[in-house]
Amino acid sequence: MTIEMELVGVRVQMPTNAPILLLREAAGNRRTVPIYIGGPEAHAIDLALSETKTARPMTHDLVINILGRLGAKLERVVITELRQGTFYAELYLRDGTGEAMSMSVRPSDAVALAVRTGTPIFAEESLVDDAGIEEAEQSEEDEEEIVEELRRFLDEVSPDDFKGPTE
Amino acid sequence: MTIEMELVGVRVQMPTNAPILLLREAAGNRRTVPIYIGGPEAHAIDLALSETKTARPMTHDLVINILGRLGAKLERVVITELRQGTFYAELYLRDGTGEAMSMSVRPSDAVALAVRTGTPIFAEESLVDDAGIEEAEQSEEDEEEIVEELRRFLDEVSPDDFKGPTE
Repeated sequence: MTIEMELVGVRVQMPTNAPILLLREAAGNRRTVPIYIGGPEAHAIDLALSETKTARPMTHDLVINILGRLGAKLERVVITELRQGTFYAELYLRDGTGEAMSMSVRPSDAVALAVRTGTPIFAEESLVDDAGIEEAEQSEEDEEEIVEELRRFLDEVSPDDFKGPTE
Repeated sequence: MTIEMELVGVRVQMPTNAPILLLREAAGNRRTVPIYIGGPEAHAIDLALSETKTARPMTHDLVINILGRLGAKLERVVITELRQGTFYAELYLRDGTGEAMSMSVRPSDAVALAVRTGTPIFAEESLVDDAGIEEAEQSEEDEEEIVEELRRFLDEVSPDDFKGPTE
């Protein structure tokens, strides 16, 4: 079973400068799943979130152009599992003939494409159970509080775990 | 008219640390066209040139997976023009029904896809006339040194250091 997620954004963890992608349950427990990603990957997501216009198509814009020209549609993306410290995701496409297909991708690519196209983002419930962080309150919290919550969590992990799961 | 080009590699211009993509005429005058690109873009090309296996598909691998799943083929890429300090390129695709199509892309994306698929790279002759540099003979050793220099650069910098001029 999958849970719909919303993209909180990308944040930089101090003092390592490690970028983190934050996804939060759209309803229910509102648990947040933090995924360590690369700097260029964070930039690709942030460009779209901030609606920054680039003079030339960036690589994810190219992917979307290709899908459009080939008559395919991105229907949903799913963060599927956390295995041995690596997050996995799947893209679900429908081609021009109506045939459904999926392919394995990095979560950052999945989210970079989803945020550019308004495609819904899901996560497997078992993944959210494993990697999700409960917030202190179940009511709406602003992003600063969520980031503080994450920082408290990250302060508690041992130095060996400091890097955290990556994609 | 277009000229077939070969990918020399990516090098770093000192002291700015700006990565440069080098394309050279495959025959004839052997003029080299240098194109300033971003650090992540240089990395995407170098990963393929060095045949580095990544655990997860990188974004250009994803593009190639999508083309394959949708039955489309990348037939050639063309660096088309240099306009107001920006290089432009086109991807030429053929979809599953045999229909030809092209789309505007950044040269780094074009080359990152071409090098992964063995797709020929061309440049408009007028572009090579404008931007091509006649060079003294370069030995194989020089080329290897250039590529090694880039690898050292990519190993040492963080994504935040990628602030050089881009295409």
